[in-house]
Amino acid sequence: MSFLWRLCQTYRSWSGPIGKATTPPLGSLNRYLTLSTQKRTSDFNSFVVRTNTCGELRSSHLGQEVTLCGWIQYRRQSLFLILRDFHGLIQVVIPQDESAASVKKLLCEAPIESVVQVTGTVISRPAGQENPKMPTGEIEIKVKTAELLNSCKKLPFEIKDFMKKTEALRMKYRYLDLRSSQMQYNLRLRSQMVMKMREYLCNLHGFVDIETPTLFKKTPGGAKEFVVPSREPGKFYSLPQSPQQFKQLLMVGGFDRYFQIARCYRDEGSRPERQPEFTQVDIEMSFVDQAGIQKLIEGLLQYSWPKDKNPLTIPFPSMTYAEALDSYGTDKPDTRFGMKKYLKSKDFEAFKKFAVNHFNQEVSPLFLKTSGSGTSPLTKLLREEEKSALISLMKVQEEDVLLLTAGDHKKACSVLGKLRLECADLLEARGIVLRDPAVFHFLWVVEFPLFLPKEEDPRELESAHHPFTAPHPGDIHLLYTEPEKVRSQHYDLVLNGSEIGGGSIRIHNAEQQQYVLEAVLKEDVKLLSHLLQALDFGAPPHGGIALGLDRLVCLVAGAPSIRDVIAFPKSFRGHDLMSSAPDYVSPEDIEPYHIQVKRPEVTDRKDVRSVICETESSEESGLLSLTKTKNP
Amino acid sequence: MSFLWRLCQTYRSWSGPIGKATTPPLGSLNRYLTLSTQKRTSDFNSFVVRTNTCGELRSSHLGQEVTLCGWIQYRRQSLFLILRDFHGLIQVVIPQDESAASVKKLLCEAPIESVVQVTGTVISRPAGQENPKMPTGEIEIKVKTAELLNSCKKLPFEIKDFMKKTEALRMKYRYLDLRSSQMQYNLRLRSQMVMKMREYLCNLHGFVDIETPTLFKKTPGGAKEFVVPSREPGKFYSLPQSPQQFKQLLMVGGFDRYFQIARCYRDEGSRPERQPEFTQVDIEMSFVDQAGIQKLIEGLLQYSWPKDKNPLTIPFPSMTYAEALDSYGTDKPDTRFGMKKYLKSKDFEAFKKFAVNHFNQEVSPLFLKTSGSGTSPLTKLLREEEKSALISLMKVQEEDVLLLTAGDHKKACSVLGKLRLECADLLEARGIVLRDPAVFHFLWVVEFPLFLPKEEDPRELESAHHPFTAPHPGDIHLLYTEPEKVRSQHYDLVLNGSEIGGGSIRIHNAEQQQYVLEAVLKEDVKLLSHLLQALDFGAPPHGGIALGLDRLVCLVAGAPSIRDVIAFPKSFRGHDLMSSAPDYVSPEDIEPYHIQVKRPEVTDRKDVRSVICETESSEESGLLSLTKTKNP
Repeated sequence: MSFLWRLCQTYRSWSGPIGKATTPPLGSLNRYLTLSTQKRTSDFNSFVVRTNTCGELRSSHLGQEVTLCGWIQYRRQSLFLILRDFHGLIQVVIPQDESAASVKKLLCEAPIESVVQVTGTVISRPAGQENPKMPTGEIEIKVKTAELLNSCKKLPFEIKDFMKKTEALRMKYRYLDLRSSQMQYNLRLRSQMVMKMREYLCNLHGFVDIETPTLFKKTPGGAKEFVVPSREPGKFYSLPQSPQQFKQLLMVGGFDRYFQIARCYRDEGSRPERQPEFTQVDIEMSFVDQAGIQKLIEGLLQYSWPKDKNPLTIPFPSMTYAEALDSYGTDKPDTRFGMKKYLKSKDFEAFKKFAVNHFNQEVSPLFLKTSGSGTSPLTKLLREEEKSALISLMKVQEEDVLLLTAGDHKKACSVLGKLRLECADLLEARGIVLRDPAVFHFLWVVEFPLFLPKEEDPRELESAHHPFTAPHPGDIHLLYTEPEKVRSQHYDLVLNGSEIGGGSIRIHNAEQQQYVLEAVLKEDVKLLSHLLQALDFGAPPHGGIALGLDRLVCLVAGAPSIRDVIAFPKSFRGHDLMSSAPDYVSPEDIEPYHIQVKRPEVTDRKDVRSVICETESSEESGLLSLTKTKNP
Repeated sequence: MSFLWRLCQTYRSWSGPIGKATTPPLGSLNRYLTLSTQKRTSDFNSFVVRTNTCGELRSSHLGQEVTLCGWIQYRRQSLFLILRDFHGLIQVVIPQDESAASVKKLLCEAPIESVVQVTGTVISRPAGQENPKMPTGEIEIKVKTAELLNSCKKLPFEIKDFMKKTEALRMKYRYLDLRSSQMQYNLRLRSQMVMKMREYLCNLHGFVDIETPTLFKKTPGGAKEFVVPSREPGKFYSLPQSPQQFKQLLMVGGFDRYFQIARCYRDEGSRPERQPEFTQVDIEMSFVDQAGIQKLIEGLLQYSWPKDKNPLTIPFPSMTYAEALDSYGTDKPDTRFGMKKYLKSKDFEAFKKFAVNHFNQEVSPLFLKTSGSGTSPLTKLLREEEKSALISLMKVQEEDVLLLTAGDHKKACSVLGKLRLECADLLEARGIVLRDPAVFHFLWVVEFPLFLPKEEDPRELESAHHPFTAPHPGDIHLLYTEPEKVRSQHYDLVLNGSEIGGGSIRIHNAEQQQYVLEAVLKEDVKLLSHLLQALDFGAPPHGGIALGLDRLVCLVAGAPSIRDVIAFPKSFRGHDLMSSAPDYVSPEDIEPYHIQVKRPEVTDRKDVRSVICETESSEESGLLSLTKTKNP
């Protein structure tokens, strides 16, 4: 089977802005301020002693007596303090007259990052001393009284430099890291997006927010589930990877329109950009089809989209899984960029090496002219009519380069898909911006296969997504004859080359569900007897979707990692570096659960400890290392 | 030490409506309909094929062609169907003419609780056939087309009778139970209350919704935490009982106003009205005092209070812990009822027995006349001036009865507090309504002791609530001399005799926190080193509260149990009776976690299974049994 990657043609059809200057990768305080001014009438000063936030004061407050609470960001000589709260910075004038000696002493001696409360008057800065870069730069506070609310010991680093520190240090002192304007922006953005999603679902479209259990039982075929021992010997709860079964049962229960911002769990050992607990926007509807769910999600994202970003255009484009694989070599294409020809011949050597090393696959560049002439080891192998066909098929223009490979279809697609991203990396390293983080390209990928051959034994099938996915209505007849050819009613939502959501129309017929589980997947149906029975008792047709909230907010915020949009994330080894979770427990703590620790055979307790200390410290230095993927 | 229970006086001062007729204990469909009409412009029909819900059609829709989806509730002869969705019921006329034979066949043959889609016209019911009890009772649907979306097998019971079934049966078929109007009302009420709370906190008062981890580490002194084995031998995560540490660290991180509808975990074995996982409205603020938190919560509850209940009056009354114990014999007084004299002399014998059996405490009734005469075994022991003092102190009126006991203060208070509730049970059994579930009495209880003597060794102290609670400002000097006398800045919120929330101003000074942990509580501070260090790095003064959402919604909905406001609750033994969680797992499932099951010594695997089967079946029959409090 041969395959041809439509290097030029495909990109031209996705004409996103190319080469635009990037915005800063992380939110700035100003961006947060933009965000907060859009809020309705949020009163940040209700129920507390302060009258105003540090960041909100302007010339319009001149002459007002205000009480502020905040952290000392820095001090200039003994003349000025910069006071900070979540909202911004304000300049406080340290009084110099004898009568205010105690206030001066307090404000001059309090260590940086101490918490103080000051009461004073909003005054104009002297002419020429305004700071136009500071939103509060026209004014300052003339202090009357001050109180030291809490003194700060010497910090290991300055707050404003925090993002520059190693991630392990940031994690260890996460409560200090959270004071940075970036983290304040990210987590407030997340809160606001979630609130808007709730308004859309609950207030505008009648969805019911329903909590489902996290102490559940093992899902058939569901590996990677944390177990929780119960007080009955040998019996365990599982922490589910999603509320899938519960949301389907809610549809059987007549809840019609369900959503939940759901905590989910997945024990994948150590994988970068994965967290052992994560959050999904979980949605299910009755009497709906694929188009209905897609429209719902497009509306949801448009409604909750931050006002400081370019507004979204809906509907999102859609392509089939087959098209995505053929054209982009992946089921999650980044459609932001086309491809321009800034490649050098040594780049092609590197590409060829990459393809051989990672995929054991030969790749050949083909430099074709519209005239039909071309330079490539391949050109001599191609007949003239083949060249013309290629030029016509790929709509080749002057200076285009085609990359060709041959082999197994999926593998050939994958290698070219990876090379496409390699090209982008390469060009961006040369200053050509292809993937502007301020540009958001959503894409639906549809018509996935329902089953895939198992890797360990390709004669057996496994679900491409999960066993509750309904077959494509056009392919139901194949389910009983050639199940490997059945397309599903699954859909993925892709944003800038990342999968940020997936869902499907579900099987609502008990017999069909049992056939899929038993005859196709060879699963033990006893574990799902409650679900099969539920389908028999008047289950409505239903479908849904789950959006990965951490990933979505990460992309929207322009953060380098999902850990930057989670308040207390785990390291890639699953550790909380601040509190040292997980930790050793006493035998009494696990005694009620009828379990005991099975030590690795060759080591005694002391050895285990030292091994673990070692991995901890290697984690400190290599938190972001992508090559380590297994715990020792 | 002697103690006198102010049976009459105290109740008079809390003059709630007495003897009012009770409202039905569970929500009805009509109540739900009331609820749903208050909603803004929720569109229940967006994104789906139906044009209307069954429950929303009225005479104003006459002549419209509608498409409805719903369950067949029942059928009268072959003439009418009643179709149901979450919103209500509608009558569908089965066509009788020859040309619609296939529609007639479908609608006549589909089993009850099958799911159908019908399209037809809204018409008036013939004169005299209107049903005024049905919100859609003036109209019916003349069907054009019908489709059987899913057929239903014979149910073990009818949906409308569901609430009458045993709770074990309801739990096993929870997806059917959820179709009942009561469960629809309860869960939709919950969703709406939570949404209003979010609007209040997030949109009106600038709170940030922040998710905190549930895979954490053991809290010092925190028993009852589920453990989750990690992939490192001997190391475990804990599922926390609350986000307490994280919310305090968020304050240190400058998040100022945090909230979260937080999933929490507590392994208490089998206790009625407790769930292994539960939900709290978790709130924390910086720069706030006790009055600020109380005002916030009063505003929150008033804002989120359902419109179909009597509106709340704020501020809520407040009493100290000492007053509550003195006057009500409990720290969670039910202030809805006074006490009238409908007691018989044999009741007093029962009270005396109760006091002896449960508290080993003597209680004497005293029938005092305002004249000073009285009948009681005690009257002869009382001098005339003692009687007069009692009459004056208790503001005794004609026909009042006092119950007296003597002994340890707390124990004496407790027995009288319990007897007060016994009196109420007794009188309500005789048809005198004291505790109207439609009346809501909120009460703050404040000034709790900071520490209590440990039960196992009264010379040692433990935290009355948790070790982060700040001492009362008036008692700080006692912390270092007589800690047992220190009052705290803890506050409880009580509703109709149930504690529905609790919180405190926290210690924000690292030295004070370390003193409490080390010197007073003798805890291992190493486990909390991250928190102590955080307090040293500029922690602002802060405080917060957590409301028990399940309990609150249960009381507001008038549901008999918190299990009626949770979609998929566990039985009192912690079982999911629908899916049989927790369940046995294979050795391979726990292998990555370096644990093995420790079987009870005397039994082999087969025996354990049979023991567990037995307890399951006893659970089925006695789900609500309050006497069983331990797993065998």
